[in-house]
Amino acid sequence: MMREKRSPGQPCGQKVSFPRFSNLNRVPEILDFPRPNVGPFRNENPTPCTCQNTNPANQYVPKKELDDLQKRRAEEFRQHQIRTGKENDVLILAPANAPLQYPIRGFRVTPMNKTPVPGLALQTQKRAVYKVSLRVQKGVLSVSDIQEGEQVDGQDEKHLRISSSSLQQLNDLLSRLTYTSTIYHIKTEDLAYFSFENHEVIFPIEIRRLSVPVLFDPGKDVNSQVTVLIKAFLRYKELNVLISSIRRSYPKIKIIVADDSLKPEKVEGDNIEHYIMPPAQGWFAGRNLAVSQVTTKYFLWVDDDFVFLNETRIESFVKIMESVPELDVVGGQVGGNQFSFLLQYEEGISEEGGCITRAVRTHAPLPGFDGCFFADGVVNYFLGRTQAVRRVAFDPFLKRVAHTEFFVDGLGDLLVVTCKGLRIGHQKHSATNNYRFYRHPPKSDLEEKMTHHFFKNYLKCIKY
Amino acid sequence: MMREKRSPGQPCGQKVSFPRFSNLNRVPEILDFPRPNVGPFRNENPTPCTCQNTNPANQYVPKKELDDLQKRRAEEFRQHQIRTGKENDVLILAPANAPLQYPIRGFRVTPMNKTPVPGLALQTQKRAVYKVSLRVQKGVLSVSDIQEGEQVDGQDEKHLRISSSSLQQLNDLLSRLTYTSTIYHIKTEDLAYFSFENHEVIFPIEIRRLSVPVLFDPGKDVNSQVTVLIKAFLRYKELNVLISSIRRSYPKIKIIVADDSLKPEKVEGDNIEHYIMPPAQGWFAGRNLAVSQVTTKYFLWVDDDFVFLNETRIESFVKIMESVPELDVVGGQVGGNQFSFLLQYEEGISEEGGCITRAVRTHAPLPGFDGCFFADGVVNYFLGRTQAVRRVAFDPFLKRVAHTEFFVDGLGDLLVVTCKGLRIGHQKHSATNNYRFYRHPPKSDLEEKMTHHFFKNYLKCIKY
Repeated sequence: MMREKRSPGQPCGQKVSFPRFSNLNRVPEILDFPRPNVGPFRNENPTPCTCQNTNPANQYVPKKELDDLQKRRAEEFRQHQIRTGKENDVLILAPANAPLQYPIRGFRVTPMNKTPVPGLALQTQKRAVYKVSLRVQKGVLSVSDIQEGEQVDGQDEKHLRISSSSLQQLNDLLSRLTYTSTIYHIKTEDLAYFSFENHEVIFPIEIRRLSVPVLFDPGKDVNSQVTVLIKAFLRYKELNVLISSIRRSYPKIKIIVADDSLKPEKVEGDNIEHYIMPPAQGWFAGRNLAVSQVTTKYFLWVDDDFVFLNETRIESFVKIMESVPELDVVGGQVGGNQFSFLLQYEEGISEEGGCITRAVRTHAPLPGFDGCFFADGVVNYFLGRTQAVRRVAFDPFLKRVAHTEFFVDGLGDLLVVTCKGLRIGHQKHSATNNYRFYRHPPKSDLEEKMTHHFFKNYLKCIKY
Repeated sequence: MMREKRSPGQPCGQKVSFPRFSNLNRVPEILDFPRPNVGPFRNENPTPCTCQNTNPANQYVPKKELDDLQKRRAEEFRQHQIRTGKENDVLILAPANAPLQYPIRGFRVTPMNKTPVPGLALQTQKRAVYKVSLRVQKGVLSVSDIQEGEQVDGQDEKHLRISSSSLQQLNDLLSRLTYTSTIYHIKTEDLAYFSFENHEVIFPIEIRRLSVPVLFDPGKDVNSQVTVLIKAFLRYKELNVLISSIRRSYPKIKIIVADDSLKPEKVEGDNIEHYIMPPAQGWFAGRNLAVSQVTTKYFLWVDDDFVFLNETRIESFVKIMESVPELDVVGGQVGGNQFSFLLQYEEGISEEGGCITRAVRTHAPLPGFDGCFFADGVVNYFLGRTQAVRRVAFDPFLKRVAHTEFFVDGLGDLLVVTCKGLRIGHQKHSATNNYRFYRHPPKSDLEEKMTHHFFKNYLKCIKY
């Protein structure tokens, strides 16, 4: 593994040095460049992130628990690296002037199924005998339909050698090469080493179990495309005002209410599904419950103290999502508030964890949609793609105050935009003492949450 | 795009023909092999699957709805292809004897961040002037720190040309090349075309937003590692027998009960969370609700008429999962029943959809664990990795009878094993008429389910 120091301000990328080709002023008779190291190189970030302007993520962990917690966290991270295929995350180079042709990308097999290897060939000048060798680790190689006289050594083994006095015959044998993975795995990679004389190349073999598509039938109109989701707690007056306002514009749309009120009241009406949770079970627990029940392609998240305005139009959200199938979340505007933010995340080094801060900005504009911008997080008024949001989930540990955490968990997985002109109203409300008590939890709650965050998201520094 | 016919019985793989190298009997003075086509080739399966021994998936769709349904399904599949990056799923070859060195795998950038390109070099014989060219589509190229006299044309554009009379200087310029993606995307790929004289190579550039890890703190014992999940419906007598049996061995473990009984009764006790759903809301809706509430790393699924035996040991499941971090589901045995199965899935062609059948077999053994075998589905007594199972989800559309559907949705995403020696008991029960009515739904229910399946999983043929 070769590493180079990163200069301050230099963006993160591969931190690997590659051989330079100096002393090449003479005119060689034959191609005699030094054999470069083509890898595989581990793709690792050697640069720690710093807690400048942010807070150490472990600052609230009780001192006597910190050591054990860090050990458990390191172990979970180790398992995470295995699960995310870190060992296969390597950089490989194609060396110059190798007389070998081979697939560099896109060669995929299903586990334990014999599959032809595409595109292998040798192109070289005349020799008495041509010999090539191939080596794999997680499978075996074989040449199909071997005929009398064909020189193949290592059939159905990890290391195969082919020779011939005819280049044409050798290439014909290569065209009949197959690979069969010998380990059962649904997602991993093997590396094949292909060599001829003093040339060696490496190419990846993706071992992947096929997935079945999971599609949602959007049906014919907004009622079959979207479910409205609400988390309810104590504020039944506001909840009922909201529901009435929804029904004025959308008499038939399904509404799911996840309710952890201390003394649940009935919430009834056509096409309203009311779920009763243990009392005060929690904000994100309720959000995750609601989204777990959605059968439509999209859902519209609203807080229980919002109110539909005359201008509130669910179809406008749907139009954007349908035009850009890669989108997962389209955020709107609550009253005058079109809050959105970016998350600045650095991976840091394996031993320490990452650093994350939030900035109130957007990324680039969404092409073709005036007033829409990519972001990492939006307000609590958004259309979500059900399958994508379910995959990220709202962490049910988060009981009282949480918002950014969902978008942190979704970073890299959710494509999020915020758009102008998608407004909902906000009810004025008089929160009861009971509500205020839960809504503004004691300091210990915040400390527990920060500790959870330190562990869950493997962080060194946090600030938002 | 070049395609070749697949012979019957030939395993699926890339169906692409590659140029063969014939007429190479003469001894060339210089290397003058024909320039091969290195791609990119679309990775597509041109072979339809057949409904032999299975049933057409659309057989229950009412004739007058079939046309519209198929149109909507085709549109959803088109969007699915976009979301899953089908256009980037290409096969690329490295041509033989190209005097160019370049990264074939592992070059990754974050969106819109200038990143050094690793490993580019030219290795060739003496010339008066050396000229290389690079071309990208989704970003721009530039050479860092350009000095006076360095000949770089197209700085910060899609097409960059570098020349020099010194090979060393040219390679130095190449070592300072950077790529910056110009489109904002969280997961996509660009292709770079790198050429010198009549040689051209292609290499992929992965554009990927970093994800933050999501880890679970397993805590100190089984109570902090596992939550027991039960879906309840009408059978309170059996449910209470089950809960008592759990408490005998595990007095402190958290139990989550998702209950859609017609007239919910209280289910109380320390560390029991009882969720009330709309009456008869459904089996998989209840399962998805239960799993949405889990805060532990693992959960144990049990049906409401199971009963813990003296030998029932949750720790045995955990031990297997902890030893093999890539596992997602470990299935046990209910009474004498250690049911497990494989799913045989063929993708088929884009226009028609796939074919799926079930076989009562296992894949390979799990190395190191006597009596454990990989499978695609298990009985309803299993330990699940919370995050992995949540990502797949239990489809809340499935109200009455469903089992295999979860594993179909999870194919390729869940690594599943079934193991001997992990037993739970099954209560004898007298189902009431009410229960039987819901448990054995009318034919129309089955037909609706099949139609849902036809759409959701984009199937041509189903049998299980």
